[in-house]
Amino acid sequence: MLTDHVITMRRAAPLVQCLTNTVVTQFTANALLSAGASPAMVDTPEEAADFARIASGVLVNLGTPTAALYTAARETVRGAAATGTPWVLDPVACGGPAARSSFAADIVMHRPAAVRGNPSEIRALAALVSRDLTGPPSGRGVDSTDEVESALDAATYLASTTGAVVAVSGPRDLIVSVDGAAGHAGDAVRTSWLTSGVPMMQQVVGTGCSLGALTAAYLGSTADRTGHHDAVLAAHAHAGAAGTAAARVADAPGSFAVAWLDQLHLLSAGQIGDLVSVDEL
Amino acid sequence: MLTDHVITMRRAAPLVQCLTNTVVTQFTANALLSAGASPAMVDTPEEAADFARIASGVLVNLGTPTAALYTAARETVRGAAATGTPWVLDPVACGGPAARSSFAADIVMHRPAAVRGNPSEIRALAALVSRDLTGPPSGRGVDSTDEVESALDAATYLASTTGAVVAVSGPRDLIVSVDGAAGHAGDAVRTSWLTSGVPMMQQVVGTGCSLGALTAAYLGSTADRTGHHDAVLAAHAHAGAAGTAAARVADAPGSFAVAWLDQLHLLSAGQIGDLVSVDEL
Amino acid sequence: MLTDHVITMRRAAPLVQCLTNTVVTQFTANALLSAGASPAMVDTPEEAADFARIASGVLVNLGTPTAALYTAARETVRGAAATGTPWVLDPVACGGPAARSSFAADIVMHRPAAVRGNPSEIRALAALVSRDLTGPPSGRGVDSTDEVESALDAATYLASTTGAVVAVSGPRDLIVSVDGAAGHAGDAVRTSWLTSGVPMMQQVVGTGCSLGALTAAYLGSTADRTGHHDAVLAAHAHAGAAGTAAARVADAPGSFAVAWLDQLHLLSAGQIGDLVSVDEL
Repeated sequence: MLTDHVITMRRAAPLVQCLTNTVVTQFTANALLSAGASPAMVDTPEEAADFARIASGVLVNLGTPTAALYTAARETVRGAAATGTPWVLDPVACGGPAARSSFAADIVMHRPAAVRGNPSEIRALAALVSRDLTGPPSGRGVDSTDEVESALDAATYLASTTGAVVAVSGPRDLIVSVDGAAGHAGDAVRTSWLTSGVPMMQQVVGTGCSLGALTAAYLGSTADRTGHHDAVLAAHAHAGAAGTAAARVADAPGSFAVAWLDQLHLLSAGQIGDLVSVDEL
Repeated sequence: MLTDHVITMRRAAPLVQCLTNTVVTQFTANALLSAGASPAMVDTPEEAADFARIASGVLVNLGTPTAALYTAARETVRGAAATGTPWVLDPVACGGPAARSSFAADIVMHRPAAVRGNPSEIRALAALVSRDLTGPPSGRGVDSTDEVESALDAATYLASTTGAVVAVSGPRDLIVSVDGAAGHAGDAVRTSWLTSGVPMMQQVVGTGCSLGALTAAYLGSTADRTGHHDAVLAAHAHAGAAGTAAARVADAPGSFAVAWLDQLHLLSAGQIGDLVSVDEL
Repeated sequence: MLTDHVITMRRAAPLVQCLTNTVVTQFTANALLSAGASPAMVDTPEEAADFARIASGVLVNLGTPTAALYTAARETVRGAAATGTPWVLDPVACGGPAARSSFAADIVMHRPAAVRGNPSEIRALAALVSRDLTGPPSGRGVDSTDEVESALDAATYLASTTGAVVAVSGPRDLIVSVDGAAGHAGDAVRTSWLTSGVPMMQQVVGTGCSLGALTAAYLGSTADRTGHHDAVLAAHAHAGAAGTAAARVADAPGSFAVAWLDQLHLLSAGQIGDLVSVDEL
């Protein structure tokens, strides 16, 4: 299943529009190219919305959010909605700067196909959404650990409330979705734990942001919503397997970044499957 | 002739001002440094025009065109005109987003020394210019293939109309100029076909955009307009030969990008000449 | 002493906020990560000032100064002042474009912990400050050589006038501070000359800009102002030693850039100390 998604994505070479931060633009474009997708960094308010109609998938990453980026993101999400283009939200540093946190909490209600973040971002985003929807949250908040497990409740809540597949990145990646979406009681929750990757990925800027773009690529080559959970899983497997393979040839961040791009390209679908493991709960 | 241009460029170490897209800024600066030129990414509306007066050559690349970039580009072209600084237009995605397409069609009439693009960009730009000048074009438009050959008429038309050397990038690069410029009947057309490079250059973002900057470097170290055609040819040979040499040591995009920068620096003028072939028609 | 600073910085993993130019954003973030610090490229006018209150150190680099960057820089310096966060000014191309030169001369009076530049930038900045404070300068100005020695008077003047540690980059790095700061007669001047690094660092864009960020990292992990001179020295030693080590494995700019990031990570504090030499005058 996972390997099928890799093969399908590479065959489709999906056109992925990225509204992303200024730190990782080049690296993200190269990650998409290496993995087999086609990047398009069309991110101005004038052009972004129209482009979302022809893109296969869209990434909205809030890493360096200028006023122009906020405007372009809103327009792009509107354009994506008009044509059903799947889009991914990466709420970078949600829970930190107030303006981007509240922007994330607002735009996440406009039906992203996936949300990808680290544990503290997902917890913060869930808390903000919950406060907007139901008043101040009952407790929890940002707790002292960033372990992925600590974001399970938050991820499930977000998946249920927004209808998105929610992915939490860490030593093990957590991918959660609610069948049928939008928080109706009794929905079946699917929870996947992916073991892949290596710690050195944290020492190269943009591996996480590129994963958001790869998620958009996989979603953009998936026929319909029923395949979205597996598409998100496949994107994480592809990125993580490349990390594992890269660590076999590189022992420091500079050469690891180069090797990671290489391995995104070199690994076959079968090799990606062999380098990761998935637990479904 | 071609090797003379490489030697001259490296000796001059021309100062190349780049107004380019946010995806490739760092890579372009590194390509210029590796090749032997001196980059200056001076691109704000406040500074760009004045800088164009002291630069040896200027690149205007429309890859991520913000409102500020449009303003800066107009001012820069005006500054370049005042001192005769040669400038290069890279009309990225011309024929796609409407605003940048019409901007390209307008600014290309302000006497660039060279225009560089892929086949579909050059065809789209020629069609837009032709419509502006003579009403709706008679036919053709964007056809189904992106082969360089399909852009020969468009490139010749653009060269004739604008006086620029027009370069079309592909498996073989096409370089066209019209002696005496600006579309007078009877002008001698020079058409060069350059065989160089490898397909993997398409899997690294910024090799094409960097080629635009290298073109500005070569033009900026050429004494007068009669050398411009050969200067554009030498820039393409330098970039392509580095690609061929890089492919001998790298088999995937991450390490290929590193090797390409290395080879821009390492190849001698003679080696560049040996790694390419030129057909003049 | 120098090796202690390396150990302390890596243990602290300081959060370094960078307002830097668009050319080197990714490379700077990777250099900080490789060296052992934690980058945060928070640079919008809306977010930058608040973030400076929680950052360990701040870099303000004027390489591609947009209107938004000027606004964000002023706010950030205000935020840093409120909490005593040390900040570094890198006055890129000071003495060139008029607007950024006068901005640099103005903001340098707002108590940066360090100023880092090349000889011509430091000389130009000192001349501008001197003119603002005392009328037209008596002579000197930008002379014909860029040797670091030629900037000794300017660096000492700046250190005395602003209270900052002033670092001048070159084949030998010059680091000057005035004990007690702010130009009182009789202050003890400390002048350190650091021999480290290799010429190829000039052929990779962003090694100098990253050094500014590393300087902010080292200042941000130093307890108080009395350690600032040594912190700046340690940052330069770390960057230079990585260059020397990188040149042993890479002979061209593309692979040198990768190796430099690797060596920022791989070199132990002791190795860094062994690869440089310091003369105190």
